[in-house]
Amino acid sequence: MPARSIIPTRSTEAPRTFTIVGGGLGGALMAIYLGREGYEVDLYERRADPRSGKADAGRSINLAISVRGIEALRGVGLAEEVLKQAVPMRGRMIHGVGGDVVYQPYGVHPDQAINSVSRKDLNVTLIEAARAMPSVRVHFDHKCVGVNIETGQARFQVGDDGGSVETSPGVVIGADGAFSAVRGAMQRLDRFDYSQSYLAHGYKELSIPPGADGRHRLERNALHIWPRKSFMMIALPNIDGSFTCTLFWAHEGENSAAAVRADDEVRGFFNRVFPDAVPHMPTLIEDFRNNPNPSLVTVRCQPWHYRDRVVLLGDAAHAVVPFYGQGANCAFEDCPVLLECLRGSATDPGAAFNEYERRRKRHADALADLAIGNFLEMRDKTGSRVFLLKKKGEKLLHRLLGDAYLPLYSMVSFSTIAYADAVERARRQNRRLGAAAAVVLLLILLLLASA
Amino acid sequence: MPARSIIPTRSTEAPRTFTIVGGGLGGALMAIYLGREGYEVDLYERRADPRSGKADAGRSINLAISVRGIEALRGVGLAEEVLKQAVPMRGRMIHGVGGDVVYQPYGVHPDQAINSVSRKDLNVTLIEAARAMPSVRVHFDHKCVGVNIETGQARFQVGDDGGSVETSPGVVIGADGAFSAVRGAMQRLDRFDYSQSYLAHGYKELSIPPGADGRHRLERNALHIWPRKSFMMIALPNIDGSFTCTLFWAHEGENSAAAVRADDEVRGFFNRVFPDAVPHMPTLIEDFRNNPNPSLVTVRCQPWHYRDRVVLLGDAAHAVVPFYGQGANCAFEDCPVLLECLRGSATDPGAAFNEYERRRKRHADALADLAIGNFLEMRDKTGSRVFLLKKKGEKLLHRLLGDAYLPLYSMVSFSTIAYADAVERARRQNRRLGAAAAVVLLLILLLLASA
Repeated sequence: MPARSIIPTRSTEAPRTFTIVGGGLGGALMAIYLGREGYEVDLYERRADPRSGKADAGRSINLAISVRGIEALRGVGLAEEVLKQAVPMRGRMIHGVGGDVVYQPYGVHPDQAINSVSRKDLNVTLIEAARAMPSVRVHFDHKCVGVNIETGQARFQVGDDGGSVETSPGVVIGADGAFSAVRGAMQRLDRFDYSQSYLAHGYKELSIPPGADGRHRLERNALHIWPRKSFMMIALPNIDGSFTCTLFWAHEGENSAAAVRADDEVRGFFNRVFPDAVPHMPTLIEDFRNNPNPSLVTVRCQPWHYRDRVVLLGDAAHAVVPFYGQGANCAFEDCPVLLECLRGSATDPGAAFNEYERRRKRHADALADLAIGNFLEMRDKTGSRVFLLKKKGEKLLHRLLGDAYLPLYSMVSFSTIAYADAVERARRQNRRLGAAAAVVLLLILLLLASA
Repeated sequence: MPARSIIPTRSTEAPRTFTIVGGGLGGALMAIYLGREGYEVDLYERRADPRSGKADAGRSINLAISVRGIEALRGVGLAEEVLKQAVPMRGRMIHGVGGDVVYQPYGVHPDQAINSVSRKDLNVTLIEAARAMPSVRVHFDHKCVGVNIETGQARFQVGDDGGSVETSPGVVIGADGAFSAVRGAMQRLDRFDYSQSYLAHGYKELSIPPGADGRHRLERNALHIWPRKSFMMIALPNIDGSFTCTLFWAHEGENSAAAVRADDEVRGFFNRVFPDAVPHMPTLIEDFRNNPNPSLVTVRCQPWHYRDRVVLLGDAAHAVVPFYGQGANCAFEDCPVLLECLRGSATDPGAAFNEYERRRKRHADALADLAIGNFLEMRDKTGSRVFLLKKKGEKLLHRLLGDAYLPLYSMVSFSTIAYADAVERARRQNRRLGAAAAVVLLLILLLLASA
């Protein structure tokens, strides 16, 4: 029989079965959205069941779930459960080299907070919820080794023994992260635009355990930053009283992963640059030795889908660097949009995927730029007086002008204004502000001249 | 035995053997450069021997070899032989829709020309020269199917029968074009920056055969352009009296490959937009049917090498769109630079590759931008009066100011000033010109005010 015979013709009936590759945050939430809608879903995850405790060690920059992510979770009734596991962070606590500490509230309202959540705990919550649905099946230890994009079939290697399975023809959702195998299959297509771009910086996960009293050793409701120009450390609170710290530093050069390696070099480096943190890091050397130094990549591609067979979601479509705390929020936002588009074009998933891409792509691109920009801001500027004044000025303007002036950070972190729209609005605000300042200056000059 | 045992330790002796993947223009010229230096070279080419006549039909946009390419050919004594097969083009011949024709000389000196050469003929010349060297072996019908970048070994499928061979550990030069298999092996490396970006336009190869008298039907020593805003056709002369035409047009939309397909649509389209060319294109419908509609891609990556094992060259490192006629010239320029770097670090090829990348990367990046910019210029602007005036103004400035003002096009096409330096110099010239114009304007105003 000719091989083409397995290619299904486009049906006038809506597809009822989805293969989701990747059981991380985006894939698991999408499974829930689809499952609630009555779709049959097979969710395949490369790693072992996260509930088994065998998570990827040292690669879990804590998540800062903001209103965007919360809204997407609320859509499937999980917002309250997730917020229960979260520690709200209401501002930045900036740690100087001399041990001085400055606190900057994030928002203009005290209830404006981003929520520190453990990636693993959140993932377990989502997987549990997905698995509780009668139409969702979750398969762990299934590594995607190939996708036939013409038929919408994915092939998986099961466990380490090398056995493999292939799904039936259908629709494949690639939610398999920055190094997506699903996207890899699409990349061979003619006219597939693709870029992967690395920062010169990587990261090292470290930790601050709870104090002797079981409570947080540093201010609980803050994101702690030790900005040091060419590198920085951050610490995000966990509900168990600990902090997860992440050191972002260059792979090479001065004060880098290449320069600081041996135990005594690590001790010397930390005592010199993060002296106030060291007493709180009893497992510093051990953490440092055990944890890898992963890279930070931005991935962009286009198109996000192939006909009505394959569609990408989350990092697989738009991996961003973690400095705006929006990667997971953006992946979560994808899910209800994709579902809405499927509802809108029930019998034509190709059109639905096209509409989903049209609605999401430019916002994901905007976030990629914002995230790189915020890296520079956090690392270089949060420690400076000018930056503090600017942030205070922005808040003052918001108090004076209300919604006519929303700081960009607030729009990104405390609203659901789509990313590209937030950027555009911030530009408009600044233009108006500049024009207003010019008018005021002119009036002053005229007054002085007439005096 | 452990697999690592085959990894050679870095030797203090220079490598004497190179595997070149890809026998196109860059790979063949590099083989000659290395062969002349006494290196052992195995050159592997996916396609059949070009002398067999089985070239890739309809994918051969004619080459415009300029002084950069000629200099690189001169370095191995092939400049004169190649120029004998070339037709010099001393200017653009712009064809309006109404049949009107305007000629713009390229350079300020009548001997400034770019040279139209058939890609296939040039390739045969290079392959013959490579094969004439005792230390160079050329292997056709060898398709690269994998590279072990740690050991510098390449694997090839031989012909269609599926047999395969693997080279010994050594150094692999990836000269295998925009869709390089060698680069594909490097792309899996951590921190490998990569982008592939397509134009919305593709191209269709067509032809104008010699006239009844065996001579060119249009002006022989010109590059003919039919600019039509959203699309354009060009024609480059061949020594046999024919022209190779290339229609660049969008894949989709109005006046695109998707919109114009059936024979009568093609006839109607050409009669409407290229009426003066149609009488010269007796095989239009046949050419149109037979030739594909390939895409146009820009590829950027970094690094260009992996340790002392693998290095990229030509399109494999930096594919550009063809609108500045510089892709092959840039690939040719790579070859003497790579050889110089190998001479400079004979016992440390890793350092040589690093230096080669340092010297070439930013210029290849600059060319990529220039090529996209020239696409817009050729398509949209060459037909406009303002463009013609601007070009005339540039030439006048050069006549007045000599080498203090070189038009960018001249620097790129008629000099060996490295691309990025040419771009920078053009910027400086324009800044100075702007400043001078401001001074002149001020003087005029002062004169008027004092009058």
